[in-house]
Amino acid sequence: MSIITLLTDFGSSSPYAAQMKAVLLGLCRATIVDITHDAPPHDITHAAYLLRAAAPAFPAGTIHLAVVDPGVGTPRQPLAVASGGQFFVGPDNGLLGPAARASDQARAFVIDVDRFARRPLSSTFHGRDVFAPVAAALANGLPIEAVGPPAASLVELPWEPAARGPGWLRGRLLYCDRFGNLVTNIPGTWLNDVPRRLILQSPRGRIPIRRGRTYADGAEGAPVAIVGSDGMVEIAVFAGRAAEALGLEAGDELVLSFTSNPSS
Amino acid sequence: MSIITLLTDFGSSSPYAAQMKAVLLGLCRATIVDITHDAPPHDITHAAYLLRAAAPAFPAGTIHLAVVDPGVGTPRQPLAVASGGQFFVGPDNGLLGPAARASDQARAFVIDVDRFARRPLSSTFHGRDVFAPVAAALANGLPIEAVGPPAASLVELPWEPAARGPGWLRGRLLYCDRFGNLVTNIPGTWLNDVPRRLILQSPRGRIPIRRGRTYADGAEGAPVAIVGSDGMVEIAVFAGRAAEALGLEAGDELVLSFTSNPSS
Amino acid sequence: MSIITLLTDFGSSSPYAAQMKAVLLGLCRATIVDITHDAPPHDITHAAYLLRAAAPAFPAGTIHLAVVDPGVGTPRQPLAVASGGQFFVGPDNGLLGPAARASDQARAFVIDVDRFARRPLSSTFHGRDVFAPVAAALANGLPIEAVGPPAASLVELPWEPAARGPGWLRGRLLYCDRFGNLVTNIPGTWLNDVPRRLILQSPRGRIPIRRGRTYADGAEGAPVAIVGSDGMVEIAVFAGRAAEALGLEAGDELVLSFTSNPSS
Repeated sequence: MSIITLLTDFGSSSPYAAQMKAVLLGLCRATIVDITHDAPPHDITHAAYLLRAAAPAFPAGTIHLAVVDPGVGTPRQPLAVASGGQFFVGPDNGLLGPAARASDQARAFVIDVDRFARRPLSSTFHGRDVFAPVAAALANGLPIEAVGPPAASLVELPWEPAARGPGWLRGRLLYCDRFGNLVTNIPGTWLNDVPRRLILQSPRGRIPIRRGRTYADGAEGAPVAIVGSDGMVEIAVFAGRAAEALGLEAGDELVLSFTSNPSS
Repeated sequence: MSIITLLTDFGSSSPYAAQMKAVLLGLCRATIVDITHDAPPHDITHAAYLLRAAAPAFPAGTIHLAVVDPGVGTPRQPLAVASGGQFFVGPDNGLLGPAARASDQARAFVIDVDRFARRPLSSTFHGRDVFAPVAAALANGLPIEAVGPPAASLVELPWEPAARGPGWLRGRLLYCDRFGNLVTNIPGTWLNDVPRRLILQSPRGRIPIRRGRTYADGAEGAPVAIVGSDGMVEIAVFAGRAAEALGLEAGDELVLSFTSNPSS
Repeated sequence: MSIITLLTDFGSSSPYAAQMKAVLLGLCRATIVDITHDAPPHDITHAAYLLRAAAPAFPAGTIHLAVVDPGVGTPRQPLAVASGGQFFVGPDNGLLGPAARASDQARAFVIDVDRFARRPLSSTFHGRDVFAPVAAALANGLPIEAVGPPAASLVELPWEPAARGPGWLRGRLLYCDRFGNLVTNIPGTWLNDVPRRLILQSPRGRIPIRRGRTYADGAEGAPVAIVGSDGMVEIAVFAGRAAEALGLEAGDELVLSFTSNPSS
């Protein structure tokens, strides 16, 4: 039985996610897993991070149905993407890219709406009327090439990659979790090459921070930079909230600097 | 395998929804789908809208278990209703009516509590102790006539129907979604018979509004009246929130007026 | 097919619960039921109540995977417990105790992390990397003795038991639900031995309160003490919110006093 995940900004108190599940269950047998329906409204970048964070743990063959779609009803393309043995279905607005490009062999196709859409086709709810039927078709074994013609290219999010040089690492805060931990786009392996004592440049000035292994590797209230559970550098404060303590939030740039002699 | 949906006001952080699922899974094999557990506490009208919005997308045979039940423990009737090939189980307080009456052949039965209730029967949680066992029995194939005697009539919500006349449509705002879109009880087909330029009468005065096809059919910030995804007239503001922009909320009356010559 | 419940403080808008489900579904066939992912962050006592409230309704063989784990990455023990025909998997920080000790034959085992952990093992997300694989192994039929050596003892929460004497009952408010009802740790059967008119000692003074059977057994706005749906004494206000009306909240001590002659 296929696994279909759902990720939307519809709100968990709305009737919309249930309508998507209704369509899926009417068309295929699948185990449905909610990633979340409480992504911030219309925040494509945030939802793209959630999808990239959640997808890799799922088994091969999983179908990820993601709908944060402020342009519904406009000519933005509806996509189905195969990547890394999984499938991604949703609007071509940047949402699918970070998860789909985790494999370097992503193949994207533009959904043939006339062929797959549920009737009557609403102009405001393609999650239910276009994307769910396509996810169900994939769960039923449709080859992805059959959903429509190849897509020329995917819309890109403005996520510049992390960078590093002598004495510094630079990246972006992608996500602040419920505990105030700040997830960055800096590869965790880069921490292997830096000394234990670092300086975080923040809106509140230059703050000493230690490289650690776990949340509890700092004194209470002291910031640590660790390798988070998704393999990226994460900034945390043991028994505290890093976001508030450091005055940082998702979207901010992050710079960690250090004396470039690792023995220091 | 049957589908059983759940709709309650218990709150998604409470242990109560899980208890209902526990009872269901102990008594039958079913795919359980949450509509929501975050309906506003004791707000029967709101939950009745959610049920009516979500139910039609589900396959025939689906069992909808809905519990917003401020009168639990009082003599209000416990009901099971067959309508349009689906089943609805919950208290007779108006919650089930709008969804069940979407078909004109609804048949309602009063649940024989002595026969179906779980023991010990609590006086405060009939969702778990009465309604879940009945939903499970229906999933196991019990004919609905066997749940108890026919119900004389259903409690009605004070939902007056939408109305129209020369130069006006009048209805009620049933629901404000997470994006600030306002769903009305005015049939979407009525928009076919009106001109493109309308006037919305609101607490903020007479506001020009356009008839459109999709959210993006207005200029940014301009209100549009479209046919929403449930077939009803919906008031939206492209890249904005209609509710705040127009000073309207769920429960308010809505009047759209126009020059009655459709060619204008 | 096994049932696996999930209870965490990760937040339902995070990607973390989905990652746990991904690991489970990759390793076993199971029906996954969320208790909640919105337990207050790091509040072990609150989550322990939710688990104790939800677990008893589940069928024998259910596996409860509970992760509220502020000490992740520190030497706190990872546990699997068999009790009352069910299984409980999570950190040894007090979270599992109240639910597991509902049976007096609980047997606890320390998880052999080297044997069961997913690779790479993160230092911050043992819910995904340690506890989920063990829950999946139990769902696949692993005898609980095989997860690791017996645990010497379980970490206890500072929950003193309820007490009573001539003219008084004393307990603790464990939980305030979404309706403002206050759930205590006083056994509901104790209400059989007290008169109808009681006095509740609260921060707002001595408040008359009636023993009732259901929420509607008081006048509107009047407090009642009833046997709640989990068999414990619950303090409620019909058509109102007891917590706000009485100035009480979860964690507070509760004393009910009365004239000790039950015929009064």
